[in-house]
Amino acid sequence: MISKMIFIIFFLTLLSHSITNASVVDFCVADLSSAETPSGFPCKSSVTINDFIFSNFNSGNTSNSPFKAVFTSAFVHQFPAVNGLEISAARLDMDVGGGVPIHSHRGASEIVMIVQGRITVGFISSDNSVFVKTLSKGQIMIIPQGLLHFQFNAGRNKATAFLSFSSSNPGAQLVDLALFGNNLSSAIVERTTLLDPAQVKKLKAIFGGSG
Amino acid sequence: MISKMIFIIFFLTLLSHSITNASVVDFCVADLSSAETPSGFPCKSSVTINDFIFSNFNSGNTSNSPFKAVFTSAFVHQFPAVNGLEISAARLDMDVGGGVPIHSHRGASEIVMIVQGRITVGFISSDNSVFVKTLSKGQIMIIPQGLLHFQFNAGRNKATAFLSFSSSNPGAQLVDLALFGNNLSSAIVERTTLLDPAQVKKLKAIFGGSG
Amino acid sequence: MISKMIFIIFFLTLLSHSITNASVVDFCVADLSSAETPSGFPCKSSVTINDFIFSNFNSGNTSNSPFKAVFTSAFVHQFPAVNGLEISAARLDMDVGGGVPIHSHRGASEIVMIVQGRITVGFISSDNSVFVKTLSKGQIMIIPQGLLHFQFNAGRNKATAFLSFSSSNPGAQLVDLALFGNNLSSAIVERTTLLDPAQVKKLKAIFGGSG
Amino acid sequence: MISKMIFIIFFLTLLSHSITNASVVDFCVADLSSAETPSGFPCKSSVTINDFIFSNFNSGNTSNSPFKAVFTSAFVHQFPAVNGLEISAARLDMDVGGGVPIHSHRGASEIVMIVQGRITVGFISSDNSVFVKTLSKGQIMIIPQGLLHFQFNAGRNKATAFLSFSSSNPGAQLVDLALFGNNLSSAIVERTTLLDPAQVKKLKAIFGGSG
Amino acid sequence: MISKMIFIIFFLTLLSHSITNASVVDFCVADLSSAETPSGFPCKSSVTINDFIFSNFNSGNTSNSPFKAVFTSAFVHQFPAVNGLEISAARLDMDVGGGVPIHSHRGASEIVMIVQGRITVGFISSDNSVFVKTLSKGQIMIIPQGLLHFQFNAGRNKATAFLSFSSSNPGAQLVDLALFGNNLSSAIVERTTLLDPAQVKKLKAIFGGSG
Amino acid sequence: MISKMIFIIFFLTLLSHSITNASVVDFCVADLSSAETPSGFPCKSSVTINDFIFSNFNSGNTSNSPFKAVFTSAFVHQFPAVNGLEISAARLDMDVGGGVPIHSHRGASEIVMIVQGRITVGFISSDNSVFVKTLSKGQIMIIPQGLLHFQFNAGRNKATAFLSFSSSNPGAQLVDLALFGNNLSSAIVERTTLLDPAQVKKLKAIFGGSG
Repeated sequence: MISKMIFIIFFLTLLSHSITNASVVDFCVADLSSAETPSGFPCKSSVTINDFIFSNFNSGNTSNSPFKAVFTSAFVHQFPAVNGLEISAARLDMDVGGGVPIHSHRGASEIVMIVQGRITVGFISSDNSVFVKTLSKGQIMIIPQGLLHFQFNAGRNKATAFLSFSSSNPGAQLVDLALFGNNLSSAIVERTTLLDPAQVKKLKAIFGGSG
Repeated sequence: MISKMIFIIFFLTLLSHSITNASVVDFCVADLSSAETPSGFPCKSSVTINDFIFSNFNSGNTSNSPFKAVFTSAFVHQFPAVNGLEISAARLDMDVGGGVPIHSHRGASEIVMIVQGRITVGFISSDNSVFVKTLSKGQIMIIPQGLLHFQFNAGRNKATAFLSFSSSNPGAQLVDLALFGNNLSSAIVERTTLLDPAQVKKLKAIFGGSG
Repeated sequence: MISKMIFIIFFLTLLSHSITNASVVDFCVADLSSAETPSGFPCKSSVTINDFIFSNFNSGNTSNSPFKAVFTSAFVHQFPAVNGLEISAARLDMDVGGGVPIHSHRGASEIVMIVQGRITVGFISSDNSVFVKTLSKGQIMIIPQGLLHFQFNAGRNKATAFLSFSSSNPGAQLVDLALFGNNLSSAIVERTTLLDPAQVKKLKAIFGGSG
Repeated sequence: MISKMIFIIFFLTLLSHSITNASVVDFCVADLSSAETPSGFPCKSSVTINDFIFSNFNSGNTSNSPFKAVFTSAFVHQFPAVNGLEISAARLDMDVGGGVPIHSHRGASEIVMIVQGRITVGFISSDNSVFVKTLSKGQIMIIPQGLLHFQFNAGRNKATAFLSFSSSNPGAQLVDLALFGNNLSSAIVERTTLLDPAQVKKLKAIFGGSG
Repeated sequence: MISKMIFIIFFLTLLSHSITNASVVDFCVADLSSAETPSGFPCKSSVTINDFIFSNFNSGNTSNSPFKAVFTSAFVHQFPAVNGLEISAARLDMDVGGGVPIHSHRGASEIVMIVQGRITVGFISSDNSVFVKTLSKGQIMIIPQGLLHFQFNAGRNKATAFLSFSSSNPGAQLVDLALFGNNLSSAIVERTTLLDPAQVKKLKAIFGGSG
Repeated sequence: MISKMIFIIFFLTLLSHSITNASVVDFCVADLSSAETPSGFPCKSSVTINDFIFSNFNSGNTSNSPFKAVFTSAFVHQFPAVNGLEISAARLDMDVGGGVPIHSHRGASEIVMIVQGRITVGFISSDNSVFVKTLSKGQIMIIPQGLLHFQFNAGRNKATAFLSFSSSNPGAQLVDLALFGNNLSSAIVERTTLLDPAQVKKLKAIFGGSG
């Protein structure tokens, strides 16, 4: 009994020397109610096992989606435990004919892991080379940070991929939304893309843009 | 026709101004035959779409494994395209009763994404708190960098998880192997763990250690 | 005389202790003939003052450019001394009516410093907000990393801006070139942008794309 | 009309999944009233286009300056939008005979871009090599991080340079001010520089130092 | 007198341009009462010389320690001035027969500098190689980040080492404490280590674990 | 015997999956004969325990030094094992009256740990505040990166400090050497420091400068 107590005392001393506020030593679960900093959110003061688990990694209802695709992200705003750890994940479900339009993530590379079905994944590099292939189960693909890319269901059944990202907050910018889904003036869109005015008008209508 | 050519000339000029060696601008597929640097391997000089795809993300034969588990990694040595991108992936298949012994990754946080079955995942923090839970499909869990952790099949069927890591080369150190699977002297193992000599001897025999 | 020599000896000793290979201690001028690494190019073994100066920061001939714009970059391939220093620069000259189409830099934020004329600069954020303004001399603007943005001459005279970037190799991806200037199939372009086939065909012709 | 609404719903869903607090996703305009962190200031909760523009990039009145030079910085305290983006800028105007005394920036490399006039720029490396040259319009020069350097007007007219830095907050330490412009005791200055007491006294008087 | 005042005005102008809130420009002494962020604690608003000094770098009383060792850390919680500077220190005193059990630091490499006595230092790499040696005064050793390692007194007198770490907050995880000093269930310990139940029970008693 | 072999096979499989070239997984001992990169030197292909130990951490002969001080560094060029690990060390011995002139390290913060004697340590911050104090055994002090600082023996006996740095290659720039120990022209020194010509001439003679 004595040796046990001494050991405990010794180790508690060691711990209190090296780690006063241990709950934020190893991780920093985001306190989303505080102001973010360039390195992420301030840390929550106390955590439980449930903070480290995201339980909504399920398929959504693709039938309600015009693109027949649902993207379920576990980024820092949905999964605060990834704060500061430079990693996050998402799940992508696509119905037959579904897909994700061309887009980029300013802050992360992405690994696409096929769970079911056949998915065409492509990206374009800065020297304008096209890298595109249809993947099946047993295959994964890496999309380097910040490059335009797309995914679509290439099969005759539902397709699912698990995605991982090299940031807790990868961001996402869809070209169509950036051009046609806001108040960027049609004149500027036309000037900076060379698209025809009629085409811009049509897509602004689809994506809800004004201007 | 003229405008087309002028545009091409303009853009090639723009490209050649900004990107002389574009194949390594956006990514740096590892040339594994060159000496590594602290930031990773030098880049291959030419790449194709196949460099960005890893096609061995399948289950191995768990029946040959004493731990009834197979770990298939897509780290930089198996999947050179992740070089420099601070991300990688792995697949973990565990038979009934299988698991991965307690270990740590010196260089990465890890996200565990359940694909099938029920898996108990646990880690211990620096303040010696235990975070452990049994996960099912639809759940993911984050394990912060460098902490001791384990996974085992908690169900009555085969279990599979996809793993992602915040490094192209996470490393892995299994406690049992580090203590009992090399030539670290038994005297040192006993002194630095307080394990009994008989226990050390038994585990050295199991894990193939000498000394 | 004696004290002078002793000082020299002392300091040379100090230097040889702390800095054996001093030419690469403070900087790492790129040896562009060696294979790049994820952190940049290996360092040249000897340098002179001229390595640290880029003397081509002049206006090009905008009259030859279909966009009436010339972009002169001093990135690592043109200005090897920025290698490893996470900074670079460029000069943008735009004739009346000229501009740079919508594009992004995967690897850098950008500061636009107006030297002459009036320039409209805009970017779109991930939440699809539009930030656009016409700048004059005495103004600078920051464009955060990886976001779609554009610049065009808003005045009745030539306009010039100096640009700086937070990377030695910012990369650049023009949406038009990525969609219409390569062999990405028209079917995929249409599917991932919702553009009309006729529009895609027209722009593929302009930008030299096949497929 | 229906398709439009569905698209909007889909994309808002996508956005709300991935970006709850989008204003700080892509950038982090400094809230200068909050306590700084090692990665910079916490982010302002709402921003407009004007946050991204710095409108004081003009020449100051060099005739009031003893060194006939004015340095106008757009660092994080003057231009909060650069917070977290690892870049900033400044403008340097020097009258005939003007210059910036020898100094260093602990936190950034610097690019000097000549706008008008002739400017002598020099730095000294850790192995004590001198790199100095007189630059004209059309030339830029890089000064690696943390090294002692200086700039002075080498021409017969006013000279102006735009400067960019690889940090939102480069810092600046002028040797003369550090030695002679504070309460560092003359005895210590003499001991750690070998300057003569009379010289130290004279310069302390000029730069306002005590002790 | 006039020139002096002008100089002061000039330099104060320069300073106020570049550095508004200088106390946090160069360093960021931790305000331990504020919530931590992924990059460390927010900065204290005012500091003195005493903030930069840690005065408890003395030997503790090893006779009270079951391992006959005392570890005195100057990490961010004890020495707030290291916040954000990616460095810290500690002192290790070991009586005859004393030592530090096998452990790892998730967040730092460590340099061991022998001050007195003879100390055996060892670490095990990811490929399970053993690196172990007994060091004396005049020797230092580096232990790479995140690997299991140990130190013990190999001599017949007291031994002391100064340690430095590549993080302001290295963390520490002792294998024995992680396995036997908390409420991790014995069943899990046995399953993930292959230790015998009796051995686990014995060590749980020593280290105060339950379960 | 059988179980032992199976375990070995399992673990070797595990290792060969995750770590093909393990000697560079955890560390990257510099191959000083190869060209450096911005992240450090390429890694040696094989290492032994002796690579991780630096055995020259002894006092040099201060009686031969004009400043009565010897600085023994274990930076990457002397101690290649610190390559890539962002840490290094040095030993400073100062005779009575000895010291290190004012200098800065462009690439590292520094911790000064007193081993024997009394040492005055001081640094000047960017806002020109002076932080100076005399330290004794049991005290350590942190000097933030890139700031001018000095150390001198404040006692009546020899003084020794162990130093650690937050970089494998901190660099060092002594103000006197930078100004007076090279071919920087006297005219430039005078112009950029306001020192008197006679003083510059005298110090150029002491430090061996020309020009």
